[in-house]
Amino acid sequence: MINWTNADSLSAWKKLQSLKGMVSVAKELSSSDAAKRVADYSVKMGGGLTYNYAAKQVNEQILKTLAELADEAQLVEKYQDLLNGSVINTGEKRMVLHQLTRGQLGKDVVADGVNKREFYINEVKRIADFANDVHSGKLVNEKGEKYTTVCQIGIGGSDLGPRAMYLALENWAKKNGTFKMEAHFISNVDPDDASAVAKSLDLSKTIFILVSKSGTTLETLTNESFVKDYLKKAGLDTSKHMIAVTSETSPLAHNPDYMAAFYMDDYIGGRYSSTSGVGGAVLSLAFGPKVFQEFLDGAAEEDKLALNKDITKNAALLDALIGVYERNVQNFPSTAILPYSQALSRFPAHLQQLDMESNGKSVNRFGEKINYVTGPVIFGEPGTNGQHSFYQLLHQGTDIIPLQFIAFKKNQTGDDVVIEGSTSQVKLCANVTAQIIAFACGKTDENPNKAFAGERPSSLIYGEDLNPKSLGALLAHYENKVMFQGFVWNINSFDQEGVQLGKKLAKTVLSGQMDGALKAYARLLI
Amino acid sequence: MINWTNADSLSAWKKLQSLKGMVSVAKELSSSDAAKRVADYSVKMGGGLTYNYAAKQVNEQILKTLAELADEAQLVEKYQDLLNGSVINTGEKRMVLHQLTRGQLGKDVVADGVNKREFYINEVKRIADFANDVHSGKLVNEKGEKYTTVCQIGIGGSDLGPRAMYLALENWAKKNGTFKMEAHFISNVDPDDASAVAKSLDLSKTIFILVSKSGTTLETLTNESFVKDYLKKAGLDTSKHMIAVTSETSPLAHNPDYMAAFYMDDYIGGRYSSTSGVGGAVLSLAFGPKVFQEFLDGAAEEDKLALNKDITKNAALLDALIGVYERNVQNFPSTAILPYSQALSRFPAHLQQLDMESNGKSVNRFGEKINYVTGPVIFGEPGTNGQHSFYQLLHQGTDIIPLQFIAFKKNQTGDDVVIEGSTSQVKLCANVTAQIIAFACGKTDENPNKAFAGERPSSLIYGEDLNPKSLGALLAHYENKVMFQGFVWNINSFDQEGVQLGKKLAKTVLSGQMDGALKAYARLLI
Repeated sequence: MINWTNADSLSAWKKLQSLKGMVSVAKELSSSDAAKRVADYSVKMGGGLTYNYAAKQVNEQILKTLAELADEAQLVEKYQDLLNGSVINTGEKRMVLHQLTRGQLGKDVVADGVNKREFYINEVKRIADFANDVHSGKLVNEKGEKYTTVCQIGIGGSDLGPRAMYLALENWAKKNGTFKMEAHFISNVDPDDASAVAKSLDLSKTIFILVSKSGTTLETLTNESFVKDYLKKAGLDTSKHMIAVTSETSPLAHNPDYMAAFYMDDYIGGRYSSTSGVGGAVLSLAFGPKVFQEFLDGAAEEDKLALNKDITKNAALLDALIGVYERNVQNFPSTAILPYSQALSRFPAHLQQLDMESNGKSVNRFGEKINYVTGPVIFGEPGTNGQHSFYQLLHQGTDIIPLQFIAFKKNQTGDDVVIEGSTSQVKLCANVTAQIIAFACGKTDENPNKAFAGERPSSLIYGEDLNPKSLGALLAHYENKVMFQGFVWNINSFDQEGVQLGKKLAKTVLSGQMDGALKAYARLLI
Repeated sequence: MINWTNADSLSAWKKLQSLKGMVSVAKELSSSDAAKRVADYSVKMGGGLTYNYAAKQVNEQILKTLAELADEAQLVEKYQDLLNGSVINTGEKRMVLHQLTRGQLGKDVVADGVNKREFYINEVKRIADFANDVHSGKLVNEKGEKYTTVCQIGIGGSDLGPRAMYLALENWAKKNGTFKMEAHFISNVDPDDASAVAKSLDLSKTIFILVSKSGTTLETLTNESFVKDYLKKAGLDTSKHMIAVTSETSPLAHNPDYMAAFYMDDYIGGRYSSTSGVGGAVLSLAFGPKVFQEFLDGAAEEDKLALNKDITKNAALLDALIGVYERNVQNFPSTAILPYSQALSRFPAHLQQLDMESNGKSVNRFGEKINYVTGPVIFGEPGTNGQHSFYQLLHQGTDIIPLQFIAFKKNQTGDDVVIEGSTSQVKLCANVTAQIIAFACGKTDENPNKAFAGERPSSLIYGEDLNPKSLGALLAHYENKVMFQGFVWNINSFDQEGVQLGKKLAKTVLSGQMDGALKAYARLLI
């Protein structure tokens, strides 16, 4: 029997509040047992990754209380319930099935008479067949030429995740001989976005992927028209250059305007859709279906590990719980994501959406006001770039901001250079290491301007290299972390009512029927 | 006589603390006087921009107290003192002269026997001559061919600002016939960054700009070696493909390894260097010297306006003061930068550095611990993209995050499409308008999940279009805002001691002479 109750009604939550400021990471990591702590505070993840939390402000007592919280809040049971097809998205009265796109970990889920796992597998196969036909030259353009380029038109979840994943694997695929097509992305309703991208492409050899679950997203339809104009001006047949990823009930489905259409459904939120056709079409076309399948396999491994009830063996669960401790006990309002990999340049922007759109809520899953803070602000840029930028505030600012480092032993291209006895990749890894200790331990100095208070907690996710499988695991880790935090806070992490009011008011402005401040502001700009 | 005193010793500061939560922006913008407020709460900026603060949580009483704070803290006098060449950067015992790169607003500043304004003008001229020679074909590669591409190698301030400015003007220049050369950027020590960029270029026609004030930045020198290897492997003469922007005392200066060198000095911090040669070389090569001069002119206009003691006529000063009210009275820990222009895609990342590296400090300018919070976390992405992402938390999350919107009436390319009776550009502007009101006024709903609390304060900077002049003004606005906030907080906004410890520890790791937790972490990765 699952109880959906607010966090502040749980006894472990109350106990946790009494454990504020208990651990000095400076002390822990300066002690003679520090190496043991670094070795012990470590969890194996999927895709060959490891989650290390030795520099987090936790000790055995806090971990024990977090485990109690996990039990009392039935976090793993709730996850299992989600996997079994319960209507977890209460606001929209929908199941939540993004994990099902990459594996079957619960009961068979049937909706509208269809086994959903079979449906998702079938769509992956349909995409693979299409991609193989494009790559082999079986499907060609008007002139019988091969397509060379793919361009995704989508916004939010139809853009950030797929774009971040493409960038994450572009160099890997080039190195590993699986690079098939260049991918580009158009998202913003700002016409300069579509204009600049469209002008940079050889339209005659480009396939545009129109991605909108509802088939009614303003930005996406507008950009579709924009691109169709360009295609027509170039004398091209738009139906030879467009495919759709949408739901079966959308106006884009079963529509002869598109070469092909691939389907998703209402049980997968945009920000969780990278492992559905939303990511699948562009990634399969760009890198081949095999690479996309490996990406799914990495995510599936991580999803399975997230079922472990032992928090010290479940990285997503532990990361979630430590985050709750940081947010609701230590009162830290934001978290920085710091990947030491240029390939992950847009991964923080994707996580910003994933986390802030999922858990930026003030009411519980029943629509009742809650009395504790929920999702933090998420931001970040790749290291070492960030070290020369906002790290100043992270080190010496007046607020403490928890940090999440991500790093890999090897780089993707295999290219490197030795300067002063070390490769760039070793320098990169030396910098991650150094930052973790600098943030945790700080440094005294007789000049306070050169002193570092330390006590800035961080975690580290690391692996051998960033490849399709480890990327899939990394993505699933964060999806599951966000889900578990939503369960603790008793909020619905799967709707997004906060985006509606702006949409509605924008329509009012466009209708010309506005007054008061709305009219006054509109006159400044329109 | 200028008094450098901590903010909490000022009587206006104490008075301000009593004005917490005084203004309901929902009430103000719903009242029958709302249109008047929108019209009145407006300040003309440089470059044809306007700063509107009608949706900020201020009223006449708060504005009066902020004006008192500005007077008591002598903010404009301190700015004038800076312009006159005082040693404002106390930590490093240096003058602060970035405004002098774009105009003379104070006394003549002489250092090392050189009039600095003349020095900066001369460097701009030297860069212009060089760029003109490249564009005209007077300077050519080994084969006598014209250079077509420029690639900046730099990190932090030598990367983020110039990159953001290039992206901001790329489409404008293409539209206006001033686009001369494609620009690319290499920054990260991750070897995949340099590898991917270098492979994408026609090296034989590329000029690399090596940017490092000290000439000793690890990442930049490493990437220089990386690129030189590539050039040599391609059989090219490295000295025909590299120029330097550096200080005259650096190892890169007066060095025959480079085709040319352009100079800056220690009085311009990296994050303030977009209007020096650091931005000047790449922007002049990419868009021509005239465009760079217009950019400087826009910044100069804004610098001049920042001298106005009337806070209602000085946008940078007012923005700074409202930010202080939000940070130190309302206790909001972060601020979002939301440009409704795809061209400003990296502008928030630049401001993140500018603000967080400048004002993320815990000691005052004399190195004494202070007892109030300073710089907030800064993050942001372009709209409308962000609307489909993290705006959920901004609208319905448990924390209030002040917002800074930026918008333009016209797009840069002139390309557009009419869908359902409006252009994309009008849709973009309708969305900004709608968001300001949605955030401020919110919406009641019998379903609390669909209700919006409102009371999210925002400002709006807007103009006719984003061009070199308005971009210069926009940049200078934020530089001056950050400076004024630093003056209020009595901190040194111009050093960055927080970056040192990580550098030092990274060297320790690379030397192999580490132990304890540092060694334990290093073993995970190296």
